[in-house]
Order: sequence, then structure tokens, then C-alpha cells
Amino acid sequence: MNKKPIGIFDSGVGGLTVAREIMRLLPDESIIYLGDTANLPYGEKSAEIITGYSVANTEFLLEFGIKVLVVACNTASSVALDFLKRSYDIPIIGVIEPAVKGAIYSTRNRKIGVIGTNRTIKSDVYARVICSMDSGMEVFSRACPLFVPLIEDNFIEHEATKLIASEYLREFIENGIDSLILGCTHYPLISEIIAGILPSVKLIDSASSTARDLQSVLETNRMLNESGRKPEKHRFFATDITDKLDTLAKRILGFDMSFGEVCLKSRQAKN
Amino acid sequence: MNKKPIGIFDSGVGGLTVAREIMRLLPDESIIYLGDTANLPYGEKSAEIITGYSVANTEFLLEFGIKVLVVACNTASSVALDFLKRSYDIPIIGVIEPAVKGAIYSTRNRKIGVIGTNRTIKSDVYARVICSMDSGMEVFSRACPLFVPLIEDNFIEHEATKLIASEYLREFIENGIDSLILGCTHYPLISEIIAGILPSVKLIDSASSTARDLQSVLETNRMLNESGRKPEKHRFFATDITDKLDTLAKRILGFDMSFGEVCLKSRQAKN
Repeated sequence: MNKKPIGIFDSGVGGLTVAREIMRLLPDESIIYLGDTANLPYGEKSAEIITGYSVANTEFLLEFGIKVLVVACNTASSVALDFLKRSYDIPIIGVIEPAVKGAIYSTRNRKIGVIGTNRTIKSDVYARVICSMDSGMEVFSRACPLFVPLIEDNFIEHEATKLIASEYLREFIENGIDSLILGCTHYPLISEIIAGILPSVKLIDSASSTARDLQSVLETNRMLNESGRKPEKHRFFATDITDKLDTLAKRILGFDMSFGEVCLKSRQAKN
Repeated sequence: MNKKPIGIFDSGVGGLTVAREIMRLLPDESIIYLGDTANLPYGEKSAEIITGYSVANTEFLLEFGIKVLVVACNTASSVALDFLKRSYDIPIIGVIEPAVKGAIYSTRNRKIGVIGTNRTIKSDVYARVICSMDSGMEVFSRACPLFVPLIEDNFIEHEATKLIASEYLREFIENGIDSLILGCTHYPLISEIIAGILPSVKLIDSASSTARDLQSVLETNRMLNESGRKPEKHRFFATDITDKLDTLAKRILGFDMSFGEVCLKSRQAKN
């Protein structure tokens, strides 16, 4: 029985796909969301800088008394999660382990594909986590750096996006994977295009896997809001408000909302 | 007779197209280049944040005793140039006025097109500068936010880039412009694709216009290095070193080089 909010951060609006799944699965919980839009995209930056941003984001959310933190950003989950877990006392969930568990559960031929930003793929974090859970898996990874800008410029159903996706995903046809982890929170928005190119591959979307993991963490820690009272309203913040922010957010969430602006002092992490 | 270096900054490597033209036109000068890669892209961020970054970049370059500053970034030129000119004593050149002069000189039917990032186009700075120089011009603007990521992911000659460019540039065929300002320093790298879609339109590339403007500013202020001695070596810095940085930089400059890493404290501008 715990009415405190759930904290979620991402570099931008992509993490709202995770927030949306949490709202669906846990309708009695309230959410404080932070998009670090002043510093996006995280995908191309160094681990040190991303860890510094992640610390600043976490400290902002802690001021709201959050009971659990969801790092709804693949890049930050891949390079900063361990540091955050060592530094703070509340339960902290990334988007990587939940997707990995989903892929291991799904695969039949033990060949798993992973797509993500340059930084996520280069960190090789998915392959490492998959192999730590089941060393018999074969993992094939591919960076797809254009997917986020294509989605954000609303080329979601455009022929160019299909061509770029074909180029990026071609090797997965040759590799014969049967499960593909969408290792970036934006990617569920183009899952139909991906499914069109890889029709017999099961797509593992980290948003719904993460929401299920969160539910189980809250249950285990007896932290669910079971007061029977309506949750507080969700609140959304961003470190830089730009024009298309609300439009994109509404497209993802399916309801009207708007961001409050905050200014964070991002510090370099001292690890 | 002045052997001090020329300072150049951009949000990333795009400004190297300007550096390259300066090296060609003024081979006796030396350059200190700063790419603020920790904070790129500037295109989607607010004017306040971009001005803060620009101040930090300028102060870093001033420590090298630069005699002139080139703001080789359209976004920063469009929102921060006036503030920088008010704040510092050395001559400061942006990339906007030189391109505008080039377009006004080139057009015959007085219809000028402008392409750039979201922020540059939204700031409407090109239209304002064009009209302040010649109020009889018609200006047609279009944001092309995918061009930079397409270039950076090496989709330079890809069919998808042609499709996206056709989508972005279609309206210029209807508008009947005869001159198009490439309002982003990356765009000269895809000028062949743009020329293929708009074959009868003269493309105005800010890199060479800016280099010519710089030459004239240095002449007027008697600041050219006429000592007859070889210039100091050029030096390149970036606020975050990523893998593809050197590769992209070499592709633009055509010679081997590497970046030194610097950490800047970006401040909000107090204007």
C-alpha cells in the first residue's frame, strides 16, 4: 500500500511508450515523467556524459518522493544503470533486462537479434545480458541510428523508412533469427514496418516487458497502490520545451497533456 | 600582419565544410576549431540554451588568442550571433549573411528558397536578413531535419535520401525559385542529390560564401597573416569524442586529423 509516484526518465519522449504501458497495466499508479530533451539524443554521447545526465535526472525525480525509478532509455540503461543502482536506495529498473527475458522466453532456434542506437549497440549490453542469462544463445546486433529521427519527423509510414529499414534489417534475414529485441523505446512506433520486413520474426518490445517487470517489483516489495483511491495525476517534465514535443507526446500517449519545463544542473558522475 | 589563429565553432563536424573552404582560400592562416559534440544537435533546442552553449564555445576559443570568430553553425548564427557581437570585441562572422548576399547576387526572378534544421527555419532568420537587404525578394523556407542524420549515417548516395529530399524539396518546384540557400553546413555533402531534384536552381553554399566574407573582414581590419611564415598547425577540439567523429571529419576535410577532447561549462546567457 504505497501511494508514492513512479519516476520515469528518458532522453526525450520515446520513454513515453514505456509510461503508456505502465498506465495500462497499473492504472492505480501515478507517474512523474522526465524527458531530458535539452541533452538529447543520448545515443551518440560518451558513457561518462550520459551517466552525469542520468544522475541529474534521478535527483530531480527523487524530490517528488518516488518509490521506484524506471530508466526508460536504452542508452542510459546500458551505460548508467549499475552506477545508479549503487548510488540510490530505491528499486531501479532499466529497459534491457525485461526485454532480454522476453526474448529468451520467445526464441525457439536460440538466435536473437537486437537493434538500437549506435551507443546501445556498441556497448554490446544486450549480448552480454543475454549470455549471462543463457550462454547458449547466438546474438546478432545492428545499430539503426536513423529510426529515431525518421519517427520524430513523422516519416513513420513512408517508403524511405521502409528502404532504410530494409537496409538495416537485411542481415537478420541471412542470420535466421526468430526473435528481435526493439532496443530503443521509439521503435514500437514503427513495429509494423519492421514486421513487414521480418514477417516470421517475433518482435520483443521493451515497453510492455518493462511494465510487467515493474509490476512484479512493486508486488514483491509490497509497494503497489492498493489504497483503493484514485492515483494522483500524472506529471510530465522536460528540460527543454520545443514545438513538436507535445505533438509527439500526444501521438504516443493518445491523450492531451503538456510538459512543464525544468532546468537541471547535469553533473559528471564520479565513478 | 597578424599570426593569431582564426576561431571556428559548430555544434559538430558540419562546420568543417566552412573550415575546409577557409583553408583553401586563406592557406596562410591557422585555425582553432571546436565542435560542441556533447551538446549536438543544436537544431531542436531553445534559443536560450543555444546562446549559453555559444558563449561557452567562444570563451574556450578566446583562450587561444583568436583574432576573429566564425560561428560555423546555422542554428547558433541564427539565434546567438547578435548576443555574441554585443558581448565580445573581436570581429564575429556568422554563416547567414554571407549566404544571403550570395543568393541575392544569384537570383534573377527574385524567388529564393532556404532549407535548414527545424530551429533555423522556425527562427525565420534567413527571410528576415534577405528582406532587410532587399525587400523585393520572395522567400520560401523548408525545414529538412533528416538531412544531418542521413549524412552522418553515410546514406549520402542512397535512394532513401533521394526520396526524403524529393519530399522536402517538392514545394520549391511549385514555387519556382531560381536560387536555394543550403542553410546548414552539412548540406554541401548532398548537394548533388539536391541538384538532381532542382536541376535549374542555383545552390548557394554558405561555406564558400563565409570564407570569402572572412577574407574581406581580415583585409579590411589588416588582420591577414602576411608574415610570409607558414601558419601554425590547425587544431581541432570537440566536447565529446565519439567513434565516428574522426571518420566523418576526414571525409569532409580530405586529410587525416584527430580531435582533442575538452570539457566546457556551458552557461545560460544572461541577455
